[in-house]
Amino acid sequence: MIKTHPLWDTYPTIQASLLECLELIIEKITIENKEIEQTVTALIESQGKLLRPAYLLLFSQLGSVSIDTHKKIIAAAASTEVLHLATLIHDDIIDESDTRRGSETVQSKHGQDVAVYTGDLLISVYFELLAEATDSIDLIQLNTQSMKRVLMGELNQMSHVYNTDITYTDYLESIKGKTAQLFELSCYEGAYLGQSDPEIIELSRSIGQDIGIAFQMLDDILDYTQTPEKLSKPVLNDVKQGIYTLPLILGLESSKEAFLPLLEKGEDLSDKELDSLVTLLHDHDCIERAHITAKHYIDKALASIDSLPDHSGKDVLYSLTKTLLTRED
Amino acid sequence: MIKTHPLWDTYPTIQASLLECLELIIEKITIENKEIEQTVTALIESQGKLLRPAYLLLFSQLGSVSIDTHKKIIAAAASTEVLHLATLIHDDIIDESDTRRGSETVQSKHGQDVAVYTGDLLISVYFELLAEATDSIDLIQLNTQSMKRVLMGELNQMSHVYNTDITYTDYLESIKGKTAQLFELSCYEGAYLGQSDPEIIELSRSIGQDIGIAFQMLDDILDYTQTPEKLSKPVLNDVKQGIYTLPLILGLESSKEAFLPLLEKGEDLSDKELDSLVTLLHDHDCIERAHITAKHYIDKALASIDSLPDHSGKDVLYSLTKTLLTRED
Repeated sequence: MIKTHPLWDTYPTIQASLLECLELIIEKITIENKEIEQTVTALIESQGKLLRPAYLLLFSQLGSVSIDTHKKIIAAAASTEVLHLATLIHDDIIDESDTRRGSETVQSKHGQDVAVYTGDLLISVYFELLAEATDSIDLIQLNTQSMKRVLMGELNQMSHVYNTDITYTDYLESIKGKTAQLFELSCYEGAYLGQSDPEIIELSRSIGQDIGIAFQMLDDILDYTQTPEKLSKPVLNDVKQGIYTLPLILGLESSKEAFLPLLEKGEDLSDKELDSLVTLLHDHDCIERAHITAKHYIDKALASIDSLPDHSGKDVLYSLTKTLLTRED
Repeated sequence: MIKTHPLWDTYPTIQASLLECLELIIEKITIENKEIEQTVTALIESQGKLLRPAYLLLFSQLGSVSIDTHKKIIAAAASTEVLHLATLIHDDIIDESDTRRGSETVQSKHGQDVAVYTGDLLISVYFELLAEATDSIDLIQLNTQSMKRVLMGELNQMSHVYNTDITYTDYLESIKGKTAQLFELSCYEGAYLGQSDPEIIELSRSIGQDIGIAFQMLDDILDYTQTPEKLSKPVLNDVKQGIYTLPLILGLESSKEAFLPLLEKGEDLSDKELDSLVTLLHDHDCIERAHITAKHYIDKALASIDSLPDHSGKDVLYSLTKTLLTRED
């Protein structure tokens, strides 16, 4: 019996649709080697938050969608989650992560070889679902452009590893690609498939971008403030891998000399030095300032949602977004 | 100035179209980090044989294609090469290969991280080109199914690593997926876009499958018979990685006890032991028998091409296929 993240217990209608998405995804993934299939199924069933499909579903409700398009919208929502899962599997190769959502990763269990091809397989399922969701080549093109931007974002982030001159603008560009792009796509695609008016579709895209930016900023803050148990994934990994995110970038921009001696250790930062780095970030108010930056995008997203036409779905959208963007795990 | 493989010097019309494909691919790939972009461009320009786009172009000529669909067919042909390049980049991560077509691989030059995302980026470009080539969601679906089968083929091959009980049937299933599928797709898609009659489109698919099977069998034979210089890639790598291909499978099926003592060394096979293995394969006529098996598919493909309606493109198709399937590099 598949379950969704407890977050959805408060929203039973969305929860039911999200379960349909998960069942559809599992139906599409058949791998001869049943052990590999089992690991992938476990990832799908691991109660991720399913934010991208949820936003697609919620934005689709704003329009004049008819009951016979329900299946197509489920397929579209499922497709966004599958692309997300593919990037998670490939990210885990790169990060050499052993756990994800509390379970062993594909690469840790079956080797990076299997992880590369399994991620690719999910990308093919992503387009398979998309082609079931729409007859519109425009929407396929929009998706290929989004996927391209996600990967450009990942590659750009790599150009900045161990770069202590990285700026807030570099960071913003990178997260707009690697994270916000998929939220943008989900919200836009939902409004498009729900046949909203063009200006609502465009506003949905912009709301998605703000949510995505805020979401990644909060994620990057949590990496410095939470325990691995609470997040169900390792913490403080990014900095050792040379990925400098919002709190640290704010620190570097305001007092580089304070952080350089620690960052010069590169991947050899010890646990004790990581603790010193976190203390230093607090000393320089970096966590607090990062929260203020994230809050700007949260407030912008909420104000835009508030400006949407009145609709029962709008209240869910507002309360969900508010809950998400004050999350602690 | 981009050049194509010398193979195409004899076929100037196809050569011109293939150059258009390469230019289109390069145009689609923009990476902020210019060193990475340069490595990808070098791979694109490295004079691979461009067989998949060439077959797509040749089969498109059998139909009643008009001049204004030329650009679309170029985009479709380019898309098949881009998917092939994506799989090459991901294969090189798995094989830990340092060279490909005589140049350093993406993973060897920039690390496996960059190779994972660059391969993914090419998959997005694959669908981007495809969406430029067609308005037909059916064709998008066909491509997603093909890509899925290619990856199932790769994953199935992995289920058989170091499996000395692997049979000819397992092998055939695996190469039908990982190699023949893309040839099948190219020939089918060419005939489809060229608006051939349904029975010609179906025959094209079957010709593509036979060509793909024969091509992979010959590739696997060359791995045991050629020098790395001649092939511009390492040889005898597969067996150390536990990938047992046609010549060795024929050996295992006819006299397992002769091969087992060497294969038990797994990845620790020394160069001397590899030489002994090759000698053993010759002693058991495995290379010759593999050639006979491949020839069955070559003859089948050529006979089917011969049965196509008369057309100037048909002669090119026949002579090209004959040349390819008697290749030594």
